[in-house]
Amino acid sequence: MKPADMTDIQVAELLADAARKVILPFFRRTDLDAENKFASGFDPVTEADRAAELAMRAILADLRPRDGIHGEEFDAVQGRSGRTWVLDPIDGTRGFISGTPTWGVLIALSDENGPFLGIVDQPYIGERFIGTPDGAYMVGPMGQRELATRRDAALGDAILFTTFPELGHPDEAAAFRAVSQRVKLTRYGMDCYAYALLAAGLVDLVIEAGLKEVDIHAPIALIRAAGGIVTDWRGGPAHGGGRALAAANPQVHAAALDILGRI
Amino acid sequence: MKPADMTDIQVAELLADAARKVILPFFRRTDLDAENKFASGFDPVTEADRAAELAMRAILADLRPRDGIHGEEFDAVQGRSGRTWVLDPIDGTRGFISGTPTWGVLIALSDENGPFLGIVDQPYIGERFIGTPDGAYMVGPMGQRELATRRDAALGDAILFTTFPELGHPDEAAAFRAVSQRVKLTRYGMDCYAYALLAAGLVDLVIEAGLKEVDIHAPIALIRAAGGIVTDWRGGPAHGGGRALAAANPQVHAAALDILGRI
Repeated sequence: MKPADMTDIQVAELLADAARKVILPFFRRTDLDAENKFASGFDPVTEADRAAELAMRAILADLRPRDGIHGEEFDAVQGRSGRTWVLDPIDGTRGFISGTPTWGVLIALSDENGPFLGIVDQPYIGERFIGTPDGAYMVGPMGQRELATRRDAALGDAILFTTFPELGHPDEAAAFRAVSQRVKLTRYGMDCYAYALLAAGLVDLVIEAGLKEVDIHAPIALIRAAGGIVTDWRGGPAHGGGRALAAANPQVHAAALDILGRI
Repeated sequence: MKPADMTDIQVAELLADAARKVILPFFRRTDLDAENKFASGFDPVTEADRAAELAMRAILADLRPRDGIHGEEFDAVQGRSGRTWVLDPIDGTRGFISGTPTWGVLIALSDENGPFLGIVDQPYIGERFIGTPDGAYMVGPMGQRELATRRDAALGDAILFTTFPELGHPDEAAAFRAVSQRVKLTRYGMDCYAYALLAAGLVDLVIEAGLKEVDIHAPIALIRAAGGIVTDWRGGPAHGGGRALAAANPQVHAAALDILGRI
């Protein structure tokens, strides 16, 4: 197949396949190098992270030379097509170094309106969640199935996820807690995997703060394709990073937004 | 093979196989029945939970009729051998209904001194962590490997897990936070999977409160077999349930115990 004949989804799946192959040999190795990106806090970058991004960039240089690339680890590539591949080779590096199976490879294709194609891939489980303009589906240990967010959940019945209870700033944590007090169940620690569960109709809300663009592009495309909504905490676009509110349906989105909008 | 010829590990693996088969068809079904065991809080019991325990009890009635059974869902069976199988068909029911892949089937074999054989099984990933008097190993997507806890981690380098930041009572949450402030990284939400990661040398501390016996027997046997330590928050036996401190090595255990012992 000539590069030009490959669909965007096929290219995105090639990227995910390449990332899986590069990353898995590093997973749960106890001699893994971890750097501290910032003097404060703990944000390790593994060799796997960099190697996977380089592998994905090489594929894009070959198959989509006119598209831009915005990756977590290396400088941006300016494109000439108006389209940009947004890559986070390992979302959830803290989970990765802890051995949890809930980190993921994030791959999105975006234009000036935001992401329109997104993959959340979990290499260890062998699970891939794919959102396209034509719908969302997953492939995993139990086969393939379509994804649809839960349409009937109200705030009082909702399952809410975030990764850290402290989120970002104390006022952001307080806003989160105000939503948390109104839902049925709050759970922590899933990194990007929580967005996949929302797309699969199992989780109703994901609230995060302090995101980078690469953290949220793929989840936006996936969740929208499954029927959900992702905005910032004011109801505006979330693809610039920062604060994100992902919701299964309009009513639970509005109810959460009403609380988050007060901070 | 006659029942009497099967080793305890073979019987335990049969139980885990049976539980997997029963539970998986219920996982991520969006029409799952969930009851509230208690008027306050949220502790669903799924059909899968009960069906898996019945399947395991049927095997034990056949293969180990003299052993006792202590399960989460049904009345205890008194044995005549001095040995008891301690079963939690789905540890992490909240995680289960949220679709996370970090709940597990817990199977232990215990005598009056506590558990000496333990399995933590994750059916969706296809991962099994096994602790025996002769050592610990796991079988999963990347094959089989021996398990050993991390021997060199001090408190300041430790990765700490608990499921809920609020733990049990406020004083328990405060004690947890006091430890959390001293470690390198704190993560949440993994249910029994965190114990498996500790046995695998990826996590250094797991601190929980409000446990039942069935929650902790299998983790104790697994972690001890991998070289770790599990006690209550006073340094005594943890197999009675309540508060548990699981640690990768004696120095990190002592350092955490010193803080937890103050409440």
